[in-house]
Amino acid sequence: MRALPFTAVSIHDRFWAPRQKTNSEATIPHELMQCRTTGRIDNFAKAAGLMPGDFEGIFFNDSDVHKWVEAAAYTLWTHPNPEWEAELDEVITKIAASQQPDGYLNSYFTLVEPTKRWQNLGMMHELYCAGHLFEAAVAHYQATGKQTLLDVACRFADLIDNTFGPGKRDGLPGHEGIELALVKLARATGEPRYMALAEYFVTRRGHSPSIFEKELENPDLPGGLGAYQHHFTRDGKYEGFYAQAHLPIQEQTECVGHAVRGMYLYSGAADIAYETDDSAITNALEALWQNVGKRLYITGGVGPSGHNEGFTRDYELPNFSAYAETCASIGLIFWAHRMFLLREESRFVDVLETALYNGALSGISLDGTGFFYQNPLASHGDRHRHAWFGCACCPPNIARLLASVGQYIYAESDDGIYVNLYVGSTADALVAGNVPIRLMQETDYPWAGDVTLTITPTRPVHFTLNFRIPGWCDQFEVCINGEVDTSQPNTAGYLAITREWRAGDRVELQLSMPVTRVHAHPLVRENLGRSALRRGPLVYCFEEADNRDGAFQTLSLADNNALETTFNSDLLGGVTVIRGTGSVLNDAEWEDNLYLTAPSAKQIDVTAIPYYAWCNRGTGKMAVWVL
Amino acid sequence: MRALPFTAVSIHDRFWAPRQKTNSEATIPHELMQCRTTGRIDNFAKAAGLMPGDFEGIFFNDSDVHKWVEAAAYTLWTHPNPEWEAELDEVITKIAASQQPDGYLNSYFTLVEPTKRWQNLGMMHELYCAGHLFEAAVAHYQATGKQTLLDVACRFADLIDNTFGPGKRDGLPGHEGIELALVKLARATGEPRYMALAEYFVTRRGHSPSIFEKELENPDLPGGLGAYQHHFTRDGKYEGFYAQAHLPIQEQTECVGHAVRGMYLYSGAADIAYETDDSAITNALEALWQNVGKRLYITGGVGPSGHNEGFTRDYELPNFSAYAETCASIGLIFWAHRMFLLREESRFVDVLETALYNGALSGISLDGTGFFYQNPLASHGDRHRHAWFGCACCPPNIARLLASVGQYIYAESDDGIYVNLYVGSTADALVAGNVPIRLMQETDYPWAGDVTLTITPTRPVHFTLNFRIPGWCDQFEVCINGEVDTSQPNTAGYLAITREWRAGDRVELQLSMPVTRVHAHPLVRENLGRSALRRGPLVYCFEEADNRDGAFQTLSLADNNALETTFNSDLLGGVTVIRGTGSVLNDAEWEDNLYLTAPSAKQIDVTAIPYYAWCNRGTGKMAVWVL
Repeated sequence: MRALPFTAVSIHDRFWAPRQKTNSEATIPHELMQCRTTGRIDNFAKAAGLMPGDFEGIFFNDSDVHKWVEAAAYTLWTHPNPEWEAELDEVITKIAASQQPDGYLNSYFTLVEPTKRWQNLGMMHELYCAGHLFEAAVAHYQATGKQTLLDVACRFADLIDNTFGPGKRDGLPGHEGIELALVKLARATGEPRYMALAEYFVTRRGHSPSIFEKELENPDLPGGLGAYQHHFTRDGKYEGFYAQAHLPIQEQTECVGHAVRGMYLYSGAADIAYETDDSAITNALEALWQNVGKRLYITGGVGPSGHNEGFTRDYELPNFSAYAETCASIGLIFWAHRMFLLREESRFVDVLETALYNGALSGISLDGTGFFYQNPLASHGDRHRHAWFGCACCPPNIARLLASVGQYIYAESDDGIYVNLYVGSTADALVAGNVPIRLMQETDYPWAGDVTLTITPTRPVHFTLNFRIPGWCDQFEVCINGEVDTSQPNTAGYLAITREWRAGDRVELQLSMPVTRVHAHPLVRENLGRSALRRGPLVYCFEEADNRDGAFQTLSLADNNALETTFNSDLLGGVTVIRGTGSVLNDAEWEDNLYLTAPSAKQIDVTAIPYYAWCNRGTGKMAVWVL
Repeated sequence: MRALPFTAVSIHDRFWAPRQKTNSEATIPHELMQCRTTGRIDNFAKAAGLMPGDFEGIFFNDSDVHKWVEAAAYTLWTHPNPEWEAELDEVITKIAASQQPDGYLNSYFTLVEPTKRWQNLGMMHELYCAGHLFEAAVAHYQATGKQTLLDVACRFADLIDNTFGPGKRDGLPGHEGIELALVKLARATGEPRYMALAEYFVTRRGHSPSIFEKELENPDLPGGLGAYQHHFTRDGKYEGFYAQAHLPIQEQTECVGHAVRGMYLYSGAADIAYETDDSAITNALEALWQNVGKRLYITGGVGPSGHNEGFTRDYELPNFSAYAETCASIGLIFWAHRMFLLREESRFVDVLETALYNGALSGISLDGTGFFYQNPLASHGDRHRHAWFGCACCPPNIARLLASVGQYIYAESDDGIYVNLYVGSTADALVAGNVPIRLMQETDYPWAGDVTLTITPTRPVHFTLNFRIPGWCDQFEVCINGEVDTSQPNTAGYLAITREWRAGDRVELQLSMPVTRVHAHPLVRENLGRSALRRGPLVYCFEEADNRDGAFQTLSLADNNALETTFNSDLLGGVTVIRGTGSVLNDAEWEDNLYLTAPSAKQIDVTAIPYYAWCNRGTGKMAVWVL
């Protein structure tokens, strides 16, 4: 199973295409400006000796630029623009110029602690930054065909490969990410050493003796011991949970520690399992997947706690204090995508879709220049979007996700084509060995569940078209060239239609998309007795802007309540809203009472909007789960 | 307004009388044994030079013994017993022997840091322990007429009075309690210096410069700086909230910090306001009372957080993690009682009654030898009662409360008599200046709301009988000598019946006592959508012992659910249980699902018991608030 790459897919719907346009016109320039004004670009120039001055900002700031480069590269493919290609090349030139003669590339260490490379792998993010450089280089190469950054990446990867590994130095990234990046680099270049190094990083992790434990003994550690001890020790004793270094990957069954780190590790491990067919890793990933299924916000957010930016316990999913970092949902998309490629089952794409349309997408404003680091499921009105962050991992991460979302829509196996996401788009593939085929998908998803796929092979060809029947969908109909087909989904969750396909064949799929009320596991304490509204892949929320005074905070939607949907093209870039009536408590009588025996309620009209669109009209109260 | 003292009241009902009997027969001996085996009694003997050895335990352990002496003294009045009087005298002899020539009495400082008296007032509890000594001495004097301990107390109080105050040394207790104790001592001895010292401690508090801030500058502090800084500083800066030393009492409007400290301070301040008619203090106490009304568990528990053993924010009342220390509810009873005496309104007695029958009484097992320090309103089954604690403030505190509960039933003003609590009891008072009167109250309260009061003055006498109409009571009937009386409660919350009372006059009061479902303020996040069952003064809970598997955790009691009450004399010492049916979620379908659109429910029969009686049948799940 292989994803159809972003270069093979063109999106032309009214949901994602405008977001990609905004991404190209607003987000990419905005983020470059932020990288410039915060000294992130200059750090490379300084490290290259092109300008004087000290390193500015946080030691891992290079990674933000790398992610921006990756996002800008995808965007050049979807929205070619010579002016921006020149901007991108200029940034890449500075990055490349900062590379040291031996291939090393990290502006912080080059400028600040040049003699202390690789001494604090646990906390100082050299390998993490390298990973983002590799991902950027591969994207740039795929989008533009230029090898400028790819060569830089390979030189650095060669240095890392010469430094770390069996028979060489023992080393691991404290923040994972380089594993999946090396897999990308290996696939783009065909270099098996990179794949082997990725496998080493995935499988060395969690073994004893721990390199992190050893680094903790260094009193002269670059960056100091304080943060390291905070994250990697408990009661003075080494503990690897924070960075998923507590057990070898094959023995891990519980999602622990920093959520983004976890998602990146599991993604890299899935890549390795795919490449090596290692069933021990695959089984561990299945166990981890089962576990994340007990630690997943309905929005596809993961990592409820701000304390470790990560995981806590099964079913601990607080709403107001939900951390649910944008990057963690993006990481979950990466992991889910790789699990699909590995296992070929739609259940992984269900989670991918949930995170994509909700917990990740909420991380960026509709105008493309306001970001969330945290994505709570309820707010007292104290949240607002930020133009940037000191630790700016999320903004370029969501930009690269949006720019490359095309790669998640389709996949191909030797048998045929998989349609995983319903997005108006055109895709080119080869089937049955070498028959070129064009797929044209027309749909108003996620606002409607009607999908038409027109298949245009260059000659009649026998293969299977696999349509994902989403987990949220209880009822569907399918017609092939106007004839009802009664096929049912297979155990992998796909409606598999095998036939000789001819140019102009049309499959019409109607996914029934009613508003449903979703209930959470009773151990999710805050949600007991509550429900959330979902329609298709979209989770809804109540926001103060639509509901005066945030009165929905005591909202009770009676079970038999009629909920109506309307598409409102003037609202929030065009959204389907859900309207209904419910009862709320009467605030006045609670002014002087803490307890009442017969509180009165009043009927109110309420409006819910898609969760991803919240906090685009100023600050205000918000809730996903209501009584 | 004056309370009828415990010496004037004799309880003979089937609710409190058995608890007092258990207190005398089980709790008092059990606690003395605990004080003995933990070295608490020996500490006094060692400090007196009567035996060799080092101080054992925590530096404030003397206070537990003082509280036990107080409890034992009350108990000697209610349950005279020469053997126990001898035991008590023996303990008192050791305490007295430990008094230093100058009057100082604290076994820790005498044995461990004799040169460092009064240097760490903020954390080392010398004045707090002194307060408990004074309370014990007054109780012992009132119960037995013996002055042995009272003389000891006065000598120590004289030393303290000679040491601290205007023109003397600046000093304050870090843990309040001595204020109300000095008021008791002043009233028992007629010594105005003790009252003045109490007033000084109440009114000096919260002024700048702070003696606590000054003590924090002492690197050689007895007890060390660690705990002190933890509680009295924030980001390295002095902060008085923990010990209510942030503002002068007249400017305090918010209940902050350590809850027991707060309750004791507000109690002492109410005593001072009563004595001095200081309207600034009274107004502050009214503001604090309004505020505690936003921070009060339905059980009368206060101080939700274990972090500071105290207050947090308005409406922050978590159930599972509720700290709600037994001592804090007892302190709330002290404060509420004094607020009633000051303001003569029943609303204070409503809170007193709630705390007495629920959050305080839950702190002791039915057999009298198992204690709670914390009183959560929900449990996952991980709570159990303890025979004793390292920090053993709660066990002797609940013992002294139970032994002296008679003092809260009646009060007298120049106009007449107040019946505040409905407890089968006999009380003696003087009315109309000097007419002796006996009140005989017969009731099965809290199991029934019928009360008969028989009045026996020595001659016909004109005065007012004030019956408290509880805040929980929506409907009542009253008959005087068999004739219906249609009086309504006055604005103070009392049914005031003024007439010439003759021997044998009978007032029959019927307080309607249905099961009610109480709702919490919508900002009490965990309780939104939930209700609790209350009947009369009793809050009910669902316990695993009566409800298989603790299935009540997802229990939904439909609004129109019939709830039946039955008195079960074999259960938990005799309790009225509430039975009904409700629906719970079907556990099985949640095994592999985190979210479901149409979870099924099943009907179950459920039984609720009074909250105070929970955790008397082993550990198990429990919940007060259900859907």
